[in-house]
Amino acid sequence: MHVLITGAAGMIGRKLADRLAQDGSLHGKPVERLTLLDIVPPAKPAQFTGLVETIAADLSQPAEAGRVIAARPDALFHLAGVVSGEAELDFEKGYRVNLDGTRALLEAIRTAGDGYKPKVIYTSSIAVFGAPFPPSIPDDFHLTPLTSYGTQKAMGELLLADYSRRGLCDGIGIRLPTIVVRPGKPNAAASGFFSGIIREPLAGLEAILPVPEGVVHTHASPRAAVGFLLHAAGLSPEVLGARINLSMPGVCCTVAEQIASLRRIAGERVAARIRRASDPLIARIVEGWPQRIEARRARALGFTAESSFDEIVRIHIDEDRAGSFVA
Amino acid sequence: MHVLITGAAGMIGRKLADRLAQDGSLHGKPVERLTLLDIVPPAKPAQFTGLVETIAADLSQPAEAGRVIAARPDALFHLAGVVSGEAELDFEKGYRVNLDGTRALLEAIRTAGDGYKPKVIYTSSIAVFGAPFPPSIPDDFHLTPLTSYGTQKAMGELLLADYSRRGLCDGIGIRLPTIVVRPGKPNAAASGFFSGIIREPLAGLEAILPVPEGVVHTHASPRAAVGFLLHAAGLSPEVLGARINLSMPGVCCTVAEQIASLRRIAGERVAARIRRASDPLIARIVEGWPQRIEARRARALGFTAESSFDEIVRIHIDEDRAGSFVA
Repeated sequence: MHVLITGAAGMIGRKLADRLAQDGSLHGKPVERLTLLDIVPPAKPAQFTGLVETIAADLSQPAEAGRVIAARPDALFHLAGVVSGEAELDFEKGYRVNLDGTRALLEAIRTAGDGYKPKVIYTSSIAVFGAPFPPSIPDDFHLTPLTSYGTQKAMGELLLADYSRRGLCDGIGIRLPTIVVRPGKPNAAASGFFSGIIREPLAGLEAILPVPEGVVHTHASPRAAVGFLLHAAGLSPEVLGARINLSMPGVCCTVAEQIASLRRIAGERVAARIRRASDPLIARIVEGWPQRIEARRARALGFTAESSFDEIVRIHIDEDRAGSFVA
Repeated sequence: MHVLITGAAGMIGRKLADRLAQDGSLHGKPVERLTLLDIVPPAKPAQFTGLVETIAADLSQPAEAGRVIAARPDALFHLAGVVSGEAELDFEKGYRVNLDGTRALLEAIRTAGDGYKPKVIYTSSIAVFGAPFPPSIPDDFHLTPLTSYGTQKAMGELLLADYSRRGLCDGIGIRLPTIVVRPGKPNAAASGFFSGIIREPLAGLEAILPVPEGVVHTHASPRAAVGFLLHAAGLSPEVLGARINLSMPGVCCTVAEQIASLRRIAGERVAARIRRASDPLIARIVEGWPQRIEARRARALGFTAESSFDEIVRIHIDEDRAGSFVA
């Protein structure tokens, strides 16, 4: 089969491409061809033996979407997007990439005109939810995003559901929780500290904790995120029914529990590299975010995340630090 | 003040324009100017003494939206749209008019560039909801539309909320229940019988009832719909908060209760003009529709509908039949 990944140069896109290359198949079907698309040229996965094409293109240009679809990929992982912070700062870019890009892709599928009906796996986000929240967000909670990013993701979910209902594609939207531990350098995202307080101390560096330790949040590892995407690709439309957009499960815990995991796994000296420096702006942003996601339907459909934050820390050490850390 | 109505040639648009003309003011401010826009030239309300401009234009043409906004209306009632049945049959037209038209209007406001920040009252629909439903749909129920029309309305709600959150306009979206009794000829809408079984017998004609009498639905009169729109125009952003899209109240009753109202008000001979002829297709469509809408927030914010179906029947006789009916 032919698999397309948009946003293939991003953190999850790279891990997904590597995993597909390593597995060589998707739900029992051999992957013969991989098309990797991003705004910058994505890297080719090392282990893949099939045909790989890398494309640097902007999907919000309708002709580009049509060109990508011309090769009729069987499964599309649509990860491309402008992140939360950028979509908030650059109104036009956010709508162009996140909304118009998604719509252009779906329109290219609709207008293919030869009965083409691919599987489309769309990454949404828990940013589709907006405070105030109940203690635990149920599957049928309404979408009242408080960011342009969340708005664009929610609109993409609605489009995907309508195109799927009309039989134009087999869509599934998965709302990712916060993905930790993100490898690499700290970024400017308000959620960055959730990764930073684990990643930096393990690298021998100081990390700043800008919020109180009582803050509750739902997390999953990059490995779990890739697992969600692959599992989603195997769910049939019959199993999904009309409600194709699903909140993913995760580990729900406090920041104090995150730190306790780090201490258990790496020791007190590592955990002591976290410096408390409250930042009222970040604290206020984080207050508006979902805390606990129920994700009952996703769990019932077989999506699995880690069962403890310890596991998430171990995956980071294993996958991104080659098994070691700075004690 | 200057008021713009899009979709001004439609049933509710005409009644709203007449009401504004009659009142001569909106929440205490005199209405000096009325711009009535539709795809066909709307009629000028008879009683209005101010400046009236009628425009036949397609808002989904961005230049058109810009031209309309150039006059800086203070309040926009955005009623224009392709109805449910047509949006389902004509995919491209539905998205162009209902989604792109709404977006073009909001973009024209955003890019006005002189601090222009009008009140925007957007008519949404309970079609944003999709079965299965709880016995009563709460305010925080998720939006899983089962039609392209419902999808487009839900996307419009999300856009309006984001533009409002960013301070580009003061938006409010109101989800109308089924509006009965629609005056005029029967139309092809699957919901047409809810009006038909009252309107036709009162006119001395036979009406077909295609669903079982036990079907439960939520209704409001055209007069109530105009009342919702006018009330919405007076609610401040502070009172509304971030969740600006509201399900409107209505009279929730069975078809049997509708018929009992007709019998009470117009007599057995009139009620006997309803012929039962079940239509499995319509029955199936109606099964997918919301039955009971809680509308707690809207009620708390002062939106009022009729308190009984009797009232709805009487409003039709009064407003559309000059007080009489064919006994």
